[in-house]
This record gives sequence, C-alpha cells and structure tokens, in this order.
Amino acid sequence: MIRIGVIGYGYWGPSVARNFHGLDDCELAVVSDRRPDALRRAKQAYPNVQVTLDAAEVVAASNIDAVAVVTPVWTHFELAKAALENGKHVFVEKPFSATAAEAEQLIDLADRKHLQIMVDHTFLFTGAVRKIRQLIDEGTMGDLYYYDSTRVNLGLFQHDINVIWDLAPHDLSIVDYLIKQKPEAVIATGQVHLNGFEDLAYITIYFADRMIAHINVNWLSPVKVRTTLIGGQKKMLVWNDLDAAEKIKVYDKGVNMANGGSGQSIYDLLVSYRSGDMWSPRIDQTEALTTEAKYFVECIANNQRPFNDGVAGLRVVKMLEAADKSLKERGRPVEL
Amino acid sequence: MIRIGVIGYGYWGPSVARNFHGLDDCELAVVSDRRPDALRRAKQAYPNVQVTLDAAEVVAASNIDAVAVVTPVWTHFELAKAALENGKHVFVEKPFSATAAEAEQLIDLADRKHLQIMVDHTFLFTGAVRKIRQLIDEGTMGDLYYYDSTRVNLGLFQHDINVIWDLAPHDLSIVDYLIKQKPEAVIATGQVHLNGFEDLAYITIYFADRMIAHINVNWLSPVKVRTTLIGGQKKMLVWNDLDAAEKIKVYDKGVNMANGGSGQSIYDLLVSYRSGDMWSPRIDQTEALTTEAKYFVECIANNQRPFNDGVAGLRVVKMLEAADKSLKERGRPVEL
Amino acid sequence: MIRIGVIGYGYWGPSVARNFHGLDDCELAVVSDRRPDALRRAKQAYPNVQVTLDAAEVVAASNIDAVAVVTPVWTHFELAKAALENGKHVFVEKPFSATAAEAEQLIDLADRKHLQIMVDHTFLFTGAVRKIRQLIDEGTMGDLYYYDSTRVNLGLFQHDINVIWDLAPHDLSIVDYLIKQKPEAVIATGQVHLNGFEDLAYITIYFADRMIAHINVNWLSPVKVRTTLIGGQKKMLVWNDLDAAEKIKVYDKGVNMANGGSGQSIYDLLVSYRSGDMWSPRIDQTEALTTEAKYFVECIANNQRPFNDGVAGLRVVKMLEAADKSLKERGRPVEL
Amino acid sequence: MIRIGVIGYGYWGPSVARNFHGLDDCELAVVSDRRPDALRRAKQAYPNVQVTLDAAEVVAASNIDAVAVVTPVWTHFELAKAALENGKHVFVEKPFSATAAEAEQLIDLADRKHLQIMVDHTFLFTGAVRKIRQLIDEGTMGDLYYYDSTRVNLGLFQHDINVIWDLAPHDLSIVDYLIKQKPEAVIATGQVHLNGFEDLAYITIYFADRMIAHINVNWLSPVKVRTTLIGGQKKMLVWNDLDAAEKIKVYDKGVNMANGGSGQSIYDLLVSYRSGDMWSPRIDQTEALTTEAKYFVECIANNQRPFNDGVAGLRVVKMLEAADKSLKERGRPVEL
Repeated sequence: MIRIGVIGYGYWGPSVARNFHGLDDCELAVVSDRRPDALRRAKQAYPNVQVTLDAAEVVAASNIDAVAVVTPVWTHFELAKAALENGKHVFVEKPFSATAAEAEQLIDLADRKHLQIMVDHTFLFTGAVRKIRQLIDEGTMGDLYYYDSTRVNLGLFQHDINVIWDLAPHDLSIVDYLIKQKPEAVIATGQVHLNGFEDLAYITIYFADRMIAHINVNWLSPVKVRTTLIGGQKKMLVWNDLDAAEKIKVYDKGVNMANGGSGQSIYDLLVSYRSGDMWSPRIDQTEALTTEAKYFVECIANNQRPFNDGVAGLRVVKMLEAADKSLKERGRPVEL
Repeated sequence: MIRIGVIGYGYWGPSVARNFHGLDDCELAVVSDRRPDALRRAKQAYPNVQVTLDAAEVVAASNIDAVAVVTPVWTHFELAKAALENGKHVFVEKPFSATAAEAEQLIDLADRKHLQIMVDHTFLFTGAVRKIRQLIDEGTMGDLYYYDSTRVNLGLFQHDINVIWDLAPHDLSIVDYLIKQKPEAVIATGQVHLNGFEDLAYITIYFADRMIAHINVNWLSPVKVRTTLIGGQKKMLVWNDLDAAEKIKVYDKGVNMANGGSGQSIYDLLVSYRSGDMWSPRIDQTEALTTEAKYFVECIANNQRPFNDGVAGLRVVKMLEAADKSLKERGRPVEL
Repeated sequence: MIRIGVIGYGYWGPSVARNFHGLDDCELAVVSDRRPDALRRAKQAYPNVQVTLDAAEVVAASNIDAVAVVTPVWTHFELAKAALENGKHVFVEKPFSATAAEAEQLIDLADRKHLQIMVDHTFLFTGAVRKIRQLIDEGTMGDLYYYDSTRVNLGLFQHDINVIWDLAPHDLSIVDYLIKQKPEAVIATGQVHLNGFEDLAYITIYFADRMIAHINVNWLSPVKVRTTLIGGQKKMLVWNDLDAAEKIKVYDKGVNMANGGSGQSIYDLLVSYRSGDMWSPRIDQTEALTTEAKYFVECIANNQRPFNDGVAGLRVVKMLEAADKSLKERGRPVEL
Repeated sequence: MIRIGVIGYGYWGPSVARNFHGLDDCELAVVSDRRPDALRRAKQAYPNVQVTLDAAEVVAASNIDAVAVVTPVWTHFELAKAALENGKHVFVEKPFSATAAEAEQLIDLADRKHLQIMVDHTFLFTGAVRKIRQLIDEGTMGDLYYYDSTRVNLGLFQHDINVIWDLAPHDLSIVDYLIKQKPEAVIATGQVHLNGFEDLAYITIYFADRMIAHINVNWLSPVKVRTTLIGGQKKMLVWNDLDAAEKIKVYDKGVNMANGGSGQSIYDLLVSYRSGDMWSPRIDQTEALTTEAKYFVECIANNQRPFNDGVAGLRVVKMLEAADKSLKERGRPVEL
C-alpha cells in the first residue's frame, strides 16, 4: 500500500487525487492547497482524507510515501526538492520544472536518494498515443517524415506563463516519446497580443535524419482544434483528438519514387502516388490518468524507473527553454 | 475588342483560355505550347483559334493586344519581357517571376511602354477572399491579430520548384491583399524528403503592429486541408475553402481585457471571454478567373492599373525569396 | 423548502437526485431502489440522505412533499398513484405511463388532490429546444412545413420496451411543444431483429394544415446521429445535438412561389430559390435537468401548473400508443 | 461499331451523349431535342453529329443501332416503343416508365424483337454501390437487417412529378440490386407544400425475412444529405456519397445475442456489444455513366441481357407505383 499526498487542488489536482484514490494499492492520505475553498471541495469529496493549507506539512509528513505536485511550474522545484529530501517519491505535473538546471538537480537528488520521479506527461498514457507508438514500433508507418500538430482554442489564459509553456509540453512530450531521432535545433515564432505573454506560437524542431516536427499553439482561436498529422514512408495518419469515434485514421497513402536508371537527371524520377484504404483502429478508452497513476504505484512498488521519469521531463524542459529563447529573438534558431 | 494570345496550355492554361474566350469584348486569338498534344486539345476546344508550337510567334504577333503567360515560373521573365517589348499587355501566372530583380525589370519596362501587367493572383477574385476583405475594410473584424493558413495535400509534386514556390504564393498574395501592415521579417523552416526540393514548409511573417502570419504548406499530407484562421480584435473567422456550403464562419468570440485600475500589476488584468453567435455569410460563387479575366480586359480598355499589378507580384516574390533564403539556412530570420 | 424523495437510482435517477440536491430551496430526503448496490452508490454520494429498498416507504413518508419516479415505465402508474394518494406532488420519468388510460387516471387524481404532476420531458429545457421554440414563436421560421428527426445509435437495448417507447418520447415531446397544429394520424413501420422488440422504427405524424413530422429511431446503427431538420416557410434549420459548438444552424434558404397570373396552369408557377446567409445562435449551456428541477420546485411553491404537466405527458403517450398500434399492423395508419 | 442516337439534350442528355461519344466502339450519330438552343449546344460540342428537332427521325433512322431516351418519364413509353418497333436497342432514363403496364409492354416487345433494353440506373455502376454489393456477396456484412437512406436537398423541383418519382428511383434501384429478399409491402407518407406535388416523402419497404428499407426524400431541406446506413449481422456501414475521400465506412460493430440456456426467458438473453475497428475501402472513381455506357455497347455486341434490363426497371416502377398509391392514401400499406 502506497500512501500519497497531493499538493494543489485547483484545475488538475482533483483528477490526480481521484485517480490515486481509486487505486486498490494506494491510499490518498492528504491534500493541500493554499485556498480554503479548494480544501472544502477536497473534504467534501473525500471526508476521510486529511487536508492542510500548508504544503510543507505534506512534504514532511511521516506517514506518506509519495507526493504529487500539481501546482504552477515555478513552484515545482522547491516542492519536489523538499519531498525528495524527506524521502518521498514524486509525481510532478508537466512541465517538470521552470529550468533545465532545476530538473537536473531534482534528477540527481532522486538518484542519490533512490527515489522515483514521474513527470505527468498524461498524453503518453492515452489510447491514441499508445496506438500511434505501436504503429511506429511495429514498422507500420515506416520511417517518419514529420509530426505536425495544431493545438488551438479560445482561452484559458495563463497569467504566469506564455502559450508555449502552457500548451506545447503536451506535444513535446509526445514528440519525445514517438520520435527516435535526436532533436537538433528549435525555431519558435509567435506574438503577444493581450496580456504580456505570447498568446500564439509556431514551433519547428529539426531532428536528425531529416525528421521534422511542427507545433502550432494558440490561445486566440475561435475554434478548438486538436489535430496532428504524422507522415511516414509507408503510411500517414491523422489523429483528431476531438473525434470521439474515430480518433486515429491511418491512410495507406504515399509517394513512391523510382529512379529511371543511369544517366538520368532528377527530373526523370518516376513519382507515383499510392492511394489505398483508410483504417481507423479501435482506441482504448481507459482514462489516461488512471493508467498513469497505476503505473506510478507499480514503479514505486517494483523499484522500477518509469519511462516518463525526470530525464524525460528534462528533455521536454530543454525544448521549452530553447523554444522560448528562439521566440524572444523572433525566430532565431537555437541549437540543442 | 481585346485580342489575346495564351502561352502554355498545360494544367492551368486551358482555364485561362476558356475564360478569356468566354468574354464578350475579348477574342482568344492564338494558343501556344511546346507539346503537340496540348495544341491538339486546344484546337479541339477552339477550332477557329490559331495554335503554334513557338511562343515567339505569340509575343511578336501583330494582331494581338495582350499575352497571357501560363508557363513555369523560370520562363516568365523572358516571355513577359518579349511581349512587353512588342507592345503587348501581359497577364502572368503566379508567382510573377523567379527573382525580385526580374520583377523590377518587367515593371519598369511596362511603365516605359505604358502597358499593363496583371499577375494571376486568382484567389483575390474568389467570393471568399473578397468577403473577408470586406469584413476587414468595414471594421467588422477589428484590428487583425493573426492569419494562420494550412494548405496541405498529397502530391502533385513540382519537379522544378519546392513546395513554397508552388503553394505559398496563394497565401502570400492573400496576406498582401488583406493585411495593411508592412511585413518586416520572414522565418521559414521545412524539410526535403523525396525529390530534392522541400516538400513541406512552415513560414512565419512578422508584420508591423504585432500582426503575424503563418503558412503551413505540405505535399506529403494524407488529407487535403485548406483552412485559414484569422483572428481580429472584434471577431475571428475560419475560412475552410473545401466546405462548399459554409466556406466562411465568422465568430463573435474574443477576449476582453480590462485593467482593474491604478497600482495594479499585470496579474490583475480582468480577462473575460466573449462567446456569441456564429454567422456564415453567403459567398459569391462566380468563378474567380472569370471575374479576373474580365477585370484584365477592363483595365486595358480603361488604361487603368490593376490592383494585382506587377508591383503586387513583386511584393509576393520578395516574400518568396526571403522565405527560400530562410529555409536554406534552417529558419534563420530574414529581414524584408 | 420542498423535501423530495427519488425512487429509482439506476441510469437516470442519479442525475435527478443530484439536481434536486443542488437546489437551494429543495432537500433530497430519501432515495429508494430495489438493488442494494444502487443504494450504496446513493449513500456514498449523499451520506446524509436516507435510503431504502422499499419504494412504498417513500410514497408514504410523512416528511416529504414530492416524489420523483425514475423507474421503468410499467411501474409509473402504481408509484405515482400511491404518491398522489399520499398527498405528494410527482415528477415522473418519460414516458408518463404505459397507457393513456393510466395517464388519465393520474391526471384526475392529481386534480382532485390539488397536486402537481410534472413529466420529465427533459429536452424541453435544453437551450437548443428553447431557442427553436423562440425562433418559431417570434415568427422567424414562418409557418412550419416539417419536423424530421434521426435519433439512432448502437445499443443500449431495453429489455422490456421497443425502440419507439425508448427513444421516440424525446421527439414526440418536442413535437408536441413546438408544433401548434393538432396531430391527426400516426403511421409507424419498423422491424424486430434481435430481442423480440422492434429495434428500429420510422414514425410519421400527420398534423393539421399540412404539417408533418417524421422520426427515425434505431438501436442498430453503427454511428450515433441526433439530427433534426425543421423546415419553415421563411427559414429552415438543422439541429445537430452532437455538435457542441454549433448545435443549431438557421438557414436563410427557401423557395418562393409566384403564380404568373390568370389563366396559367400549375406549370407556369414561378419558382425561385433563396440562398442567403447561415446563422448559428449561441445556445444556453445550462444543464436542462437543472432548469427543469428548479421549475418543478417553483411550480409547487407557486401552486402553478407546469407546461410539461400530466396532460402534456398524456398527449405523448397517445402518440406512442398510436405508433405502437400502427407498427404492430405493419404501418396501417392510426387516427388520433 | 454501334451507332447511337440520343433523344433529349437537357440536364442529363449531354452526359449520356458525351459518354457514348467517348467510347471506342460506339459512334454518336444523332441528337434530338425539341428546343433549338439545346441543339445548338449539341452541335457546338459535336460538330460532326447530326441534330434534329424531331425525335421521330431518330427512332426511325436507318443508320443507327440504338437509341438513348433521356426525356421526361411520361414520354419514355412512346419513344422506346417506336425505337424497338424500328429494330433499335434502347437505353432508357430512370424511371423506366410511368406505369408498370407500359414497362411490361416494352419488355415483351423487346423480347419479340430480340432487342436489348437497358434502364439507366446509373448508381449501380458507381464504385460505391459496386463495393457495397461486393461486401454483401462476399459475406462480409452478414445477413442484412436494414437499408436506410436520406436523400434530401433544396430544389430542383420537377414540374410534372413528385419527389418520389424524382429522387426515390435511385434508392429503389439500389435496394433492388443489393437486397436479395423479395419486397412484400410499401408504406409511403409525405406532404405537398408548394407546387401541387409531394415535395417530401418517407418510404418504408418490408421485405421477406425481416429485411426492411427506408427512404427519406425531400426537396425542401436546407442542407444536402446523401447518407445511407446499412446494417448487417456481421458489419454495418455508412455510405456518405458527399464525402469525396471516405465514401464508405465499414464498422466492425454489432450486437451478439446469446441465450443463457434452457428455461430462460427473453429477459435472460445475453446481449453484448462489439465495437472494433472502422475501415474505409478505396472506391473506384471511374465515372459511373462511362462504365454503364460501355456495358450497354458490350451487351448489344454480345447479345447479352444486361442486369439492369427492362425487368429490373419494371421492379423499380412497381415499387414507385405502390409508394405513390400509399402516399395518396396517407400511408395505407400497399402489398406488392
């Protein structure tokens, strides 16, 4: 039985608490938040769970094994550090930390203490992303050409970070999970229209072997879009996360190139288009956070390092830092 | 009565010929193409029209007033120059020319000869773009925040140019037409996967006054997308050119920012979301090229300079050149 | 303060309980269900609410003012009758009763006892139906021509009633609410494929003044569809209840007929099509059941008869009975 | 070489003429129409083809082998009869004839004369219908449960027939082609709103073995819909003819019924839902009329009876007559 404390009971915290609470071999022991009304809601939902306004009590509590840090990014480092120093495993909301330096310190600390860090890259536990990963691993897609995501909607503005830190961690963690090549450079462009932080941005990541990723994030769109195109040598797919019934469509479409023989120029390349069936695989509908919470508890129980560990979190933070730097210089490429 | 010769009867030439042929005060006099089978098709469609394998005959013909150049971009300069030198008005397929220097020479030549140049930015004559322009001009949209276009599909590869020169001229001419601010810098990223030319690219254009444009072009997409989001201070719209019935949807959505008063920090900004009705205006369905061809003939008859003149064509070519330069340096920003 | 008891805590009962519980001037006093596990769930959600396996305790309880009957249709009559006899107001799940005779008895009983009956025609409290009613009442739609609904999906089978009694009450209550003309005849066709009850059916209702309604219900569809077309003389609309963002689209489309003058035959009618803008009004997103529960409490407090009273419920049951009768005779028309 | 004459050059005639003209082993010899401007258009398109205002010339012409009758339905009988009497094979626009009696006479006459009749049920030659037929024939769908088609749009009104005779022949010919069971009864409901003919109608056809078909046709819809659901024991499909990219979607969805054993009632049936992948097969894009015209010429050359012969046309006309009769009596079932 793992006993867990949850720090932060705002937008996402209640989902984290509910999922850990629902596990057989886990006990939700304590919830903390600075806002009394948040604690009231927690108490109403879980009458037997302890609540506190002081996060320091959670990280220091002797009767818990792990802490879930579900607070704004600029608070992650201090809270996770304190938890690790007190011998707790940590589950940290994405993005892992505000800087790569912070992430590195936390990784070191966890290693020294033999504790686990899991970064809450929830999308990696969705049926959709797991299915895409399977299609890539099995070789169905062939070599990947590109990942192109559009993640736009109206609001909800963040008051302390820009749209890249708010929305791009999703895609960056997915890109990190799906793409085997090493990222080489990041270019980000965007603009500030309303509250002093960039409210729309376009990120390109160059990878080795000509793989490229592009992420379009926007807080000022009249419509909500969650669509990703992934192009491979053998198949291409469209992942529309808003389509409940047919989230992923795999197209047997592509281009076959053949060189006509010796002595021929580039203009003699024989290009033929392949247009076959489309196929929409059934996607597992289990709530991603349920799967992830269970995995966290298993990793602790088995002393196993999660694939979405601090190092994975660090890789995402490095891309965020590079994107931010590029954005501040109006798109100057930043090498990774 | 304006007599016109059409050079190039491949993919787009037949549409150009058909539209000039259909005008009351215009006569399609001659069609040329290097390929005998193209001429056979022209002769079948227009038995009374002269055909020739030699474009030089067209530009020099004494019995025509204007020449439509509907050939690959690298041939535009020589053909248009010869036509202008022979006293013909010219209608040139987009993009206007392969370099800005060529465009400038043609503009000078036309000015000296008192001849008109029209660059075939067909999209500017569609009901959709004219409606959007109207919504902007009337002030319905308010100040513009961004223009974000996705123009992707599988194939048709060009063998002599990359995807930017193939697909982006559409959006660049529209951006040039709709956005009143001056473009300041271009950042383009992309990748070459198949035939030696970039087959996907992402272009950002920074304009004055925080306006920004983004264009996503891709020859390797499993699905065809022609969707543009335009965000304004008062309204936002989605233009889906593939939706025959509801091409433009105008959303009464937005964000209202209010500062709470003196002594307050950025965190005290009062953000409220506005979510009202959506409205899809009826779009004029007239074929754009018909309207454009008629306008060309009128401009000649009235000795009037078209708004899509050589100078407009040059502005687009300058953006293409800048995008190409940025693309070759993996996204280095290029000032305009 | 109205004190209410809820009988039936299966699929819909928890929503009814939650909504009455959430009202300021209403107290959820007791919940009953025959299944112990249902009661356990009720107790977990509302620790202070009394629970019982015996519905008879609820209808007889001295400390409650009203009873919500959220059980299978064949049980409605006995439960509602007992509640009324014990002086309770009743809120009855749709369809009101298994026969028109039962409905009439309950109406009489409530009238004699000066008690309110509300039939849970939830859809009448949705933002969508209220907006459509407003468009009709204001004259925006003009005279109505037809109502054509498709309500299909895969499963959930009912084991005691056919697809008409399961799905059609929604549309029949909406039709009863929106259409001012009197229904004259019902024709229903359909087929039994799986479990002995009709699993798909097509219902036509002829109204006075040439108004017609058609309802397509199907438990065996591979896709879920909730789309209604409503044609009026001035406007036509599409209500797609599955489209979260644009539920209702009002089309300025129609046909104008003009007779060319005296002495002309039908063939000389001048038909012209009108195709104008489309407009999608913002729809109130309040949960329908919340609005309805509040209205029930108000009706009791104000001794006001709800518009969705027993008589409205009876009108729907009469159409159901007629449809069922027609269905059993393979579509023979049944006069109302 | 088959020489063909086309009677009727209005809406559909030009497509028929173009397709016969385009065949290698067929010559378009003559076109007739009562309207001089129609003949002018024909002459412009085919300068070498004879034109005439008098259909009698075509059916009697000694130099032609076959006649395509592409005129209003009430003229089919006289024209086809005259053509057959003059020894010509006939290709007749759908619906075959205005009455079953006429159809029977034409079939008899053709048989006596050893001539072919082909009824232009064009949809049977589309890639979509051929693919559906293949899925049924191969057993992929399993036993069919239902065919449910919606075919609605605004206008084009016919001035001499109602919406059933205008739009339903498409579905009736498809139903006749796909469904192996015998039709037993027809129920049609509908209403007249504008020009004296029914402008919307709902048709149910009961077949043997519990198969049922339903057809929704409407000239007064604000939106165009061409969607058919087909339910089978093993698979279900949606055919959306307006979706260029994914016309047919085959769902591995269904219901499995198992009886729990002896002594159990209907309520003990074990129902389980199956929800698997969706698959959208590539559809042949060849123009249906091209395939059909070629088949007509082959049938003549090989003295082979087409599957869409006069008898097939008669079966459709019988269903139309029955539907019309039912419609006139407000839905009274008409046995076939």
